[in-house]
This record gives sequence, structure tokens and C-alpha cells, in this order.
Amino acid sequence: MTATQMQAWRLRHRPVGEVKDSDLELVSEPIPALTEGQVLTRVDYLSLDPTNRIWMSDQDQYMPPVALGEVMRGIITGTIVESRNPRMPVGARVIGVGGWADHWVSDGSGLSVVSDVPGLSVDQAFAVFSVAGPTAYFGLLEIGQPKAGETVVVSAAAGSVGSLVGQIAKLKGCRVVGIAGSDEKCRWIVDELGFDAAINYRSEDVGQRLDELCPNGIDVNFENVGGAIMEAVMRRMNDFSRMPLCGLISSYNDIDPAHGPATFPLILMRRIRVQGFIAYDFAADFPRCYADLGKWMAEGRVKVRTDVRHGLGNAVRELRALLTGDNTGKMLLKLD
Amino acid sequence: MTATQMQAWRLRHRPVGEVKDSDLELVSEPIPALTEGQVLTRVDYLSLDPTNRIWMSDQDQYMPPVALGEVMRGIITGTIVESRNPRMPVGARVIGVGGWADHWVSDGSGLSVVSDVPGLSVDQAFAVFSVAGPTAYFGLLEIGQPKAGETVVVSAAAGSVGSLVGQIAKLKGCRVVGIAGSDEKCRWIVDELGFDAAINYRSEDVGQRLDELCPNGIDVNFENVGGAIMEAVMRRMNDFSRMPLCGLISSYNDIDPAHGPATFPLILMRRIRVQGFIAYDFAADFPRCYADLGKWMAEGRVKVRTDVRHGLGNAVRELRALLTGDNTGKMLLKLD
Repeated sequence: MTATQMQAWRLRHRPVGEVKDSDLELVSEPIPALTEGQVLTRVDYLSLDPTNRIWMSDQDQYMPPVALGEVMRGIITGTIVESRNPRMPVGARVIGVGGWADHWVSDGSGLSVVSDVPGLSVDQAFAVFSVAGPTAYFGLLEIGQPKAGETVVVSAAAGSVGSLVGQIAKLKGCRVVGIAGSDEKCRWIVDELGFDAAINYRSEDVGQRLDELCPNGIDVNFENVGGAIMEAVMRRMNDFSRMPLCGLISSYNDIDPAHGPATFPLILMRRIRVQGFIAYDFAADFPRCYADLGKWMAEGRVKVRTDVRHGLGNAVRELRALLTGDNTGKMLLKLD
Repeated sequence: MTATQMQAWRLRHRPVGEVKDSDLELVSEPIPALTEGQVLTRVDYLSLDPTNRIWMSDQDQYMPPVALGEVMRGIITGTIVESRNPRMPVGARVIGVGGWADHWVSDGSGLSVVSDVPGLSVDQAFAVFSVAGPTAYFGLLEIGQPKAGETVVVSAAAGSVGSLVGQIAKLKGCRVVGIAGSDEKCRWIVDELGFDAAINYRSEDVGQRLDELCPNGIDVNFENVGGAIMEAVMRRMNDFSRMPLCGLISSYNDIDPAHGPATFPLILMRRIRVQGFIAYDFAADFPRCYADLGKWMAEGRVKVRTDVRHGLGNAVRELRALLTGDNTGKMLLKLD
């Protein structure tokens, strides 16, 4: 028997700075009856991502902001428990764009039916194939275009995207230096994931360490964070280097930042290519990405770590933790 | 009989802010005797370019800065008047990297022997083929990749590079809006050069005018100036637009700017490609550029205007005028 009530987080205020508990409200509502073509998904995992913070704001962004009063947007995986849509039968597993809720009614657009991946748990497959995998894969390979022997630096290196970027760059024969926020994270990316070196930006001088660790300069900067760390990396980028711009997490809590990086003129002087992207720009090529990543994971050459938190009621708190770098690997919320 | 004394500007101090007369010194020196392989060029024209200001500074840049005490670097055209180099006989016309001087002794590296271009005066050929032509051609076509029907915006549009960029973009079927600093310049680029529209940034609200003139947004921003004008353009750039970064003239008098454009996050949100370049990055392809530009000029489809000033002694004053936008078309100094 399916549920008749659902829990959902509705956006009440646009956050100013750090997200406050009162910016969203957890409400209990009746699940609406399905109309023709609709499906009801029971959400198993909610993905918490830095971009959630962007969606809560009304800044210029790549998708429409979440409207005030609406259920907060989120990437979900779940199971179809009721269906009036023949493409999505009861029992199917789906991944895609849903909401911060334990049940999700939709016409199925934005959701894809997926199969189990042998050898991967549901949370591992969700962590890689929802969005972090394609983000790392296309951003690094299509925009960064690393060549064997080149030096790749990645920030937020113990995060869902950064940890994959470094491993893929190693597969391509690059020297890889990761920047992360704790000694434990640094040990993990070097000892377990095979990065050549790591810098703890909270305890070390990033610029000085980059000088030591990148004696030939930096050819690819996979940028996730922005701010002072990005400036330190940019100052060491080589002529004709590439900078896939994936995220600027350090500024997501800023309201209308008054200025950008002082290193902007280096784009001219060093002839750097800086290019913003999101994974969905490459949606037509996702099958190739899934095939490569699936193979590398099956061979044990790419490892995935999930950081599973629990309980829909903790979504706001855990997002705050994510935005201050509390996670190691992909942060997911399991809906118990 | 060749001269025995030469006049040359030596760099004495790194300018702070606007270049002062006392930052360089005009000296009279004996012309050294040529050694094997060397040539003596009598300089006919000195090209004054915004990048001269960069070379005077010790900021991070794409060539070594001019050392204190050295003759100031400059692009020249001249005539070989004495030669111990069989590749460069007496009487040959050369173009290339020389100095702010009326005579230039070198081993010929950095100089190319050129032929007269039928229908073009020496100053017109120098204005286009030395560096402005390849800069406009490769920056727009290789990095900007404009498609017919797209909207191209170019700043410093009445300058040597900007005026060519707009004309080439028109040849490619684009809508072209130029930004310049006087009504006279605006009239010239629209009435004479065929731009679709122009904005006088000194008397008009650039953002508001861009909204009116670019109803479909901006697909290519050929960036020459930086600062507030660049931010206004970036705010109107489309998803997947391109921004060849050619110059940041508005900040060349700044010392170590403390911050960059507030619009930096738009590179991510709109998935913009920003790429710095200098013409010499494309040196291997210069023949193709010369052939195309020569043909378009012969057909009257690309027009060139030179702004010829006079007297080596006025070099510093005229560079200051260039950096405040006093010129229309390519500024050259004729050495009388």
C-alpha cells in the first residue's frame, strides 16, 4: 500500500549568506492523485550538491531559480510506486531531477529509468552516474584536454567531482595535485585514489606548496571553488593552459559579489582558455561517459566514495555542511 | 652616407599609473659598428600600441618586460641602410620588433623583409600587416568563431584592431555593434565601415544601449578594454558565447589591480568560453591572413585608417594619447 501523505521542503525565503533553517519549511502534504501520464516515485536517496545553493538564489544561473513556495529542486533516485505512464512501470528505478521530498509526483520528464550496475551499490551508482561522473569526465577531457605528462590541479579534490577528475587524469598519464580541506582528505586522495600529491588549504600555504609540487607549472586547472585558491592556482598556470570552470563554491554564499579574481588579466597574458560548463551540456554523449566510467570502476581503476547522511529532516543542515567542505566523497541523503 | 648617431628612448623608470615624460629618456648615441650577420635599419614608422604600456611594466606578461636602461621595444617598419646579413640587403623594407629609435641595429631576428602591396601606402600596409590585422583576423575567426546571423560586439571599435574585427564580422554575415569613445568615431565605424550600430561609451549608458541594440543577446564579445564596459557586455552574453580576450586597455595604467570583473561567475552560468591570445600565437598561419585581408582590402570591403603622428620626440606624449583613446584607426609615428 502506498503512502497518502508526503514530506517536502518548500523554499520560503531566498537565503542571505549561509542557508538558515527558516529559509525552507518541511511540510506534510497529501500526495495528489495521479493524472494520465504521471508517476509517483518513492525517493530513496537525495543528492546534496553545491549547485543547490545557486538554485535557492535568484542570481543569474543556468536553470530557472526555484520559485518561492515551491518544493526545493534536487537530484533524486527512487522507485516507482504508482504509475499512469507506460514508460515507467511500478518497481522501476529512476534517477533524475526531482525535489527535496520523500515522494515525487511528475510526468516523468527529467527522470530516467536505470538498471542496476553489477558490483555497484545503489548509492555508489547514484553518486557517479547522476551528475558527478559526467561532470568530471566531460569537463576534464573535452574542455581541459589533458595530455600525458601534463600537470593537472583540481580543487575540492575530495569531493564527488574532484575525486573523479583526479583519477581520470591519472588514467590519462598526467601528474595530478589535489587541493582539499583536511589531512584525512589529503591522505585519501593520495593513498587510495592515486593522486601524486595533495595540499591541505586550511593548514598549508597553497601558493608555496604549488610551487614545490608543480615545478613545470600547471597545464589544466579543473576549477571547483573560486576565490583565493583559484587565484593561487591561476598564478602558476602555463601559457596555453586550460581551465574548465565547473564551480565557484567558495562564493555561493555571497550575495552579488562586488568583484572577481585579480588574476583575470593572466587569461590574456598566458593565453589561458577558461570555459564554463555543466554536465547536461554534454547529455548527448552520456552513453560514452557511462561506458568508460563503468569499465574503469569495474577494473578498480576508478574508486567512488559516498558520504551518506540520513533523514530528509536533516537536508538543510547537511547542505550547510557540504558547503563548508565537511564531506569526503559524494554527499547523499538516505531517506529512511 | 649613413648616419653615425642615433636617437633612442631608453626606459628609466617603471611607470606608476600614466606614463610620465621622465619615465623614459631620449638619448643621442653613436650607432655601433655592425658585426657579422647584423643589419642597420633606418626606421620610417614606429607603431604605437596599447601593449607598449604592458612592456614598460614588470607585471606578469607574454614577453619579457623591457629592462630598465634598455631601448624601449616597439614595432617598426624601415629600410635597411647597411647590411652584413645576406638575407636582408641594403634597400629592403622590413617590418617587425625593433625599438623606439630612428635607427635599429639587430641580427635581423624579429624582422621580416616585405614587399610593397599594390594599392596600399607604406603606412597602410604597416598598420594592417604588422600586428593589428592578424590580431583581428585570428582572434575573431579562430577564437570567436562567429556564425552568420550572430551578434558580435567589439570594444575600442575605432581602434586598429577593433575597426578590422567589425568589418571582418560583417563579411561573415554577423550583426556588429561597436563601442567607441566619441560621436565622430561612432559615425565613422557605422557610416564608413558598415557596422550595424555604435555606442559612445562616454555619453551613453552602455548597458541600456546594448539592451536596445542586441535584442537576441551577444554571441561573440571581442574584448579590448576590460573594466566596466566589459562587465556590461558580459551581462548580456548568451549561453555558449565566446569571448576572445585581446586587451584590457582600461587597466593598463593600474598597478597590480586588486580585483577582477564581478561578472566572472557568468562564465560558469552561461558556459562562456574566454580565451586570451596574441597574434604571434598564430604566426604559422599569417600567410592565410595576409592573403584574405589583402584581397578584402583590394576589393574595398575592408578599409583601413591610419592616425599618423610625427616625430620620435613625441613618442611618449602620443602613447599617452593612445591610451586615453585619442586616436581613430591605427596610431603610427612617422620619423621625419
